[in-house]
Amino acid sequence: MNVAIIGLGNIGGSFAKSIRASLPNYKIYAIDIDTNTLSIAKSIGLIDDGSDDFKEIIPKADLIIFSVYPKLLSQLIKNYIPYLKDGAIITDVTGVKSSVIDEIEPMLPDNVDFVFGHPMAGRENRGLEFSSREVFIGANYLITPTPRNKEENINFLKDFVKQLGFGSISVITPDFHDEVIGFTSQLAHVIAISLINSDDENRNTKKYTGDSYRDLTRITNINEKLWPELFMMNKSHLLKHIDNFKSQLDKLTLAIEADDVETMEKMMLESTKRYLDLHSLNEK
Amino acid sequence: MNVAIIGLGNIGGSFAKSIRASLPNYKIYAIDIDTNTLSIAKSIGLIDDGSDDFKEIIPKADLIIFSVYPKLLSQLIKNYIPYLKDGAIITDVTGVKSSVIDEIEPMLPDNVDFVFGHPMAGRENRGLEFSSREVFIGANYLITPTPRNKEENINFLKDFVKQLGFGSISVITPDFHDEVIGFTSQLAHVIAISLINSDDENRNTKKYTGDSYRDLTRITNINEKLWPELFMMNKSHLLKHIDNFKSQLDKLTLAIEADDVETMEKMMLESTKRYLDLHSLNEK
Repeated sequence: MNVAIIGLGNIGGSFAKSIRASLPNYKIYAIDIDTNTLSIAKSIGLIDDGSDDFKEIIPKADLIIFSVYPKLLSQLIKNYIPYLKDGAIITDVTGVKSSVIDEIEPMLPDNVDFVFGHPMAGRENRGLEFSSREVFIGANYLITPTPRNKEENINFLKDFVKQLGFGSISVITPDFHDEVIGFTSQLAHVIAISLINSDDENRNTKKYTGDSYRDLTRITNINEKLWPELFMMNKSHLLKHIDNFKSQLDKLTLAIEADDVETMEKMMLESTKRYLDLHSLNEK
Repeated sequence: MNVAIIGLGNIGGSFAKSIRASLPNYKIYAIDIDTNTLSIAKSIGLIDDGSDDFKEIIPKADLIIFSVYPKLLSQLIKNYIPYLKDGAIITDVTGVKSSVIDEIEPMLPDNVDFVFGHPMAGRENRGLEFSSREVFIGANYLITPTPRNKEENINFLKDFVKQLGFGSISVITPDFHDEVIGFTSQLAHVIAISLINSDDENRNTKKYTGDSYRDLTRITNINEKLWPELFMMNKSHLLKHIDNFKSQLDKLTLAIEADDVETMEKMMLESTKRYLDLHSLNEK
């Protein structure tokens, strides 16, 4: 099996490391505009070969993993189409699905199958040097099939990511994916950015932080070229989630204003219940 | 030096473990209503002796560390006053200062010195079993002296917590403490509770979470008896911080609605800058 990784950054590099460790029979090829990264990856044995010219790689790829920005994805696939191997399976790591699928599916020739996916793991820092096998271990993986996909290729992708160590692998619709990711990922980023940016810079806050502030701002080292795209591609779901969050925030704020201990306690017991539920699976 | 720890839970236990490891000459006594916890602590050598009767402990204590709920603190100190040792130094771990100090200082006899403090470390889970030395290592410590405190006792507390492994030790006014903690701790809790409670429970969100959601909800396993007290005791600062946070949230929401990439990018570059600044000290 020849796999081609498009974009050898944090996520692409983590795929390469995972495949090397878990699937030693796979040949790993990579395409990246940064030829220096490719040289390093080849010299340490992480990839079998790499190139900034897709024509050298794409024709031999049985499996193609796009780990690039959403907008770049549709441009690249357009270029690759004449060179795709018959029967190739293609997947991606994009954090928003419906609009990406709507854009890409109409271009695809019949003899290849694009099964869209989303690894819920580690993209805080950019670049191959931050990639790791470990971030995938036990992480959630979302697969969003469309009527175009062959059952056997969906199953192939499921098996493939299972072998890389992913934990819970869910097969869901693109719209449900966008709904839930708008909540767990995008809303979380909106909140974290708003929190750290509401800090008063004159009081040297870092001397007065505990774990809570560091936890809530850990994702604020954000890729400003990627995230506005993701927010806009998932606008309607995201705005609905922001609205629901603000309702809860307003309810708690009113309770604080009114010294309404009963409401505060109820909201805290509810949050504790939800916390314990969240952890009951993660610890399995 | 005889130290008495009042309340041998998570924080009290962490003090006991830290003192044992770092200051082997100290005798450690504890007061707790849970005599079982005291027996365990004594049997493993964590404390020299413990009692649920303060009259057995307080008269010999040179240093008293209150690690109890804010409301309990003033009740206890009232009971202890006739039994305090001449020259005793008292401190606490309360997350709000001005109102606690206003309540307690008028009661105190002249021959003891209460230097108020706040370790910014680990209180996610309740009980001695969750205590640890490690949570204090490198953590921030805040000391909020009042005109009543003797310089030598403030210095004693600074040296003491430095020896326990705390990192940055700041001496600040009670009001500034409450202002900044209202932001780094209380606002963070308000946000985390609001986020997890805005989840749609019917979609089994835990299968679709990545690190970001887990980070932002880690503190939602919250002590519902403690936190309403803290919120109410620091209401004016906290409400101001909620307001500032909501302004940033509204600004980002509007930018998403309007596909205003420029504003989104600006806010993300700002959050990244602040993230890096926050980490520049924490990694020292």
